[in-house]
Amino acid sequence: MAQTPSNEGTDAPSVGELTPPDRTLMGPGPSEVNPRVLRAMSTPLVGHLDPSFIEIMDEVQELLRYTFRTDNQWTIPVSGTGSAAMEAAIGNVVEPGDTMLVPTNGYFGGRMASMAQRAGGEVVEVDAPWGEPLDPDDVADALAEHDPDVFGFVFAETSTGVLQPDVPALTAAAHDHDALVIADSVTALGGVEFRVDDWDIDVAYAGPQKCLSCPPGASPLTLSDEAMEKVLSREEEPRSWYLDLSLLEGYWGEERAYHHTAPITNVYALREALRLVAEEGIEDRWARHERLAGALKAGAEAMGLGMNAPDEYWLPSLNAVRVPEGIDDGKVCDALLERYDLEIAGGLGDLAGEVFRIGCMGHSARPENVIYVVTALGDVLESMGADVDPGAGVTATRRALEK
Amino acid sequence: MAQTPSNEGTDAPSVGELTPPDRTLMGPGPSEVNPRVLRAMSTPLVGHLDPSFIEIMDEVQELLRYTFRTDNQWTIPVSGTGSAAMEAAIGNVVEPGDTMLVPTNGYFGGRMASMAQRAGGEVVEVDAPWGEPLDPDDVADALAEHDPDVFGFVFAETSTGVLQPDVPALTAAAHDHDALVIADSVTALGGVEFRVDDWDIDVAYAGPQKCLSCPPGASPLTLSDEAMEKVLSREEEPRSWYLDLSLLEGYWGEERAYHHTAPITNVYALREALRLVAEEGIEDRWARHERLAGALKAGAEAMGLGMNAPDEYWLPSLNAVRVPEGIDDGKVCDALLERYDLEIAGGLGDLAGEVFRIGCMGHSARPENVIYVVTALGDVLESMGADVDPGAGVTATRRALEK
Repeated sequence: MAQTPSNEGTDAPSVGELTPPDRTLMGPGPSEVNPRVLRAMSTPLVGHLDPSFIEIMDEVQELLRYTFRTDNQWTIPVSGTGSAAMEAAIGNVVEPGDTMLVPTNGYFGGRMASMAQRAGGEVVEVDAPWGEPLDPDDVADALAEHDPDVFGFVFAETSTGVLQPDVPALTAAAHDHDALVIADSVTALGGVEFRVDDWDIDVAYAGPQKCLSCPPGASPLTLSDEAMEKVLSREEEPRSWYLDLSLLEGYWGEERAYHHTAPITNVYALREALRLVAEEGIEDRWARHERLAGALKAGAEAMGLGMNAPDEYWLPSLNAVRVPEGIDDGKVCDALLERYDLEIAGGLGDLAGEVFRIGCMGHSARPENVIYVVTALGDVLESMGADVDPGAGVTATRRALEK
Repeated sequence: MAQTPSNEGTDAPSVGELTPPDRTLMGPGPSEVNPRVLRAMSTPLVGHLDPSFIEIMDEVQELLRYTFRTDNQWTIPVSGTGSAAMEAAIGNVVEPGDTMLVPTNGYFGGRMASMAQRAGGEVVEVDAPWGEPLDPDDVADALAEHDPDVFGFVFAETSTGVLQPDVPALTAAAHDHDALVIADSVTALGGVEFRVDDWDIDVAYAGPQKCLSCPPGASPLTLSDEAMEKVLSREEEPRSWYLDLSLLEGYWGEERAYHHTAPITNVYALREALRLVAEEGIEDRWARHERLAGALKAGAEAMGLGMNAPDEYWLPSLNAVRVPEGIDDGKVCDALLERYDLEIAGGLGDLAGEVFRIGCMGHSARPENVIYVVTALGDVLESMGADVDPGAGVTATRRALEK
């Protein structure tokens, strides 16, 4: 065996015990993880073809259907983070030569476009400014003009804190033009009212580390029978083997044949995170997010800060708060991390430097976290000379929580 | 928000506590996970852009370089299971119009071919029967005939239990024809001598759930500067956004810009699993695998079973043992699972029904597991009427372990 002389043993890196800081996570994700989910992750593994794991897979699928509000048979966790589920959706549904209509009103519409092009699709756009939702009339016009095969939209835009209202109007317009609808629900699933079946959405994907408060690594995806029929009747194979849903059907479907080794521990974690959703009840969970994020928003506004999104498009799980005049958002985030062990984020893309992005998701959507972020943000902004009233902020948050 | 009346709360699935069976894992992976690694997975999360996580990323890269025996700057965990790292390697290095030479001597050469085709490449083959390694002369002939841009081979073939000997001869031949070499080390890394730099391998990938005994979800990949230069000077973008290494460079390189949310917990786990490699010392770890698997092999042979691979190509981490005449391999695997809570696997592809695949990897490569699998296999085979001597098997294993 020893084809080469060596002197190993002397060059082994010396890396100490894993001791990350204890952060309060109120950024755009990951959110904090419930201790029950962390404990599930320390469960010893079974094999990915073990009969007991097949049962666990079935349970996860059932819990995902409940959370997505769907009866779709094709509801699975994709073996990767949210962007893998996103690419599984787009890369399987969009065939070479297809046209996909994507939005321009946020960071993730751009990512949709890039994935659709890589899948061999043509991309056309429906415009709206960053920070505003799509106008259903504009969507209808774009559908009439371009006659796309697929229409993608971002239900909860993490870069702008905007919720897309009246989804049924968008899906009805798309279906009038025989376009399949892909909805990005990354920052919504399990935290904001989202209904795959009632809203007639064909394909939806999400991230586990947002409102589900599950460590990233296995990401929710659901497809209607009609969407799956398109996937299974493609003329050309999808361009990714790893994310090829026709192959994954062999593993998650009846056959239970080997495709790739599932991320067993991440599936354990997702199961536990989804059990917490079912125990709380999906509607109560939506209501909790709205109440807790409402208290956060009340505090920010009472302190003198502006919300980026008008109230009718406000996304409870991701609060985009305007950066006060003359304040450097990066320095504020750094100070919060250093002085308070607290994570929030600055803006992305068109909103870089203009907003703070404050998450209120899953296990992080608790009174202690909301009070803490309002208090710490007020303190740091005041110390940097911003025109804010931290006391008024905390009072408003406290009162909102008492309701 | 409530666009639709609903009656949630009544339809929440009732799913019980996570209580998988306690298996002894001696299949082709996952292997058993060291309790220290399981504990690392229950560590609360920090954000994927947290300065403390950047440090952890640096540490993981350093530990991966040590384990791969390389100085390659481009050494990262890919955010997915081993097949994601495989597709990241092939999908980035192979450009549309490139030719890739792949082997036909096992299951994973076929997967290489599928991934190369999806990347837009032409596939040519170098043949060898399942259960035999590639002949360097055949490789040289195929290189001369096809002049491929990329040559892929499987160093440790999980489907056949065959180790590819004399890697430097293969890489030298490929480099004589200016082909980049991609090595599949999924079932070798951290368990069988494997040297990226000394053997002049351009790109290598591995699975974490084999000899590293880490739950799947973040998978080792390394590329030489020359290979990365090809990736960064592509004319056309890679066909996967998620696995695009030019984008991942923004996150893992100097800039530390957001690409996707890394699977934080899986990176924690990989760090701990690699710390265990460094503590043991890579050469001592290779020696342990050879010693423990040697005892397993001695037991199988003494019992009357044949190894599929000749001794000179024997792969310690994956022992392909011939199924005795008249025995149904599936029934044996089921009986081992039911009576002994023990996982081994049957054959794949050309070897379906012909071999048992018995892993001896990472934390599973321990005396108690080796004695257990030899004992249980002998017992089950005898009970099914096979012509085996279980007592002789256990004695041979015990004696080999005493050495």
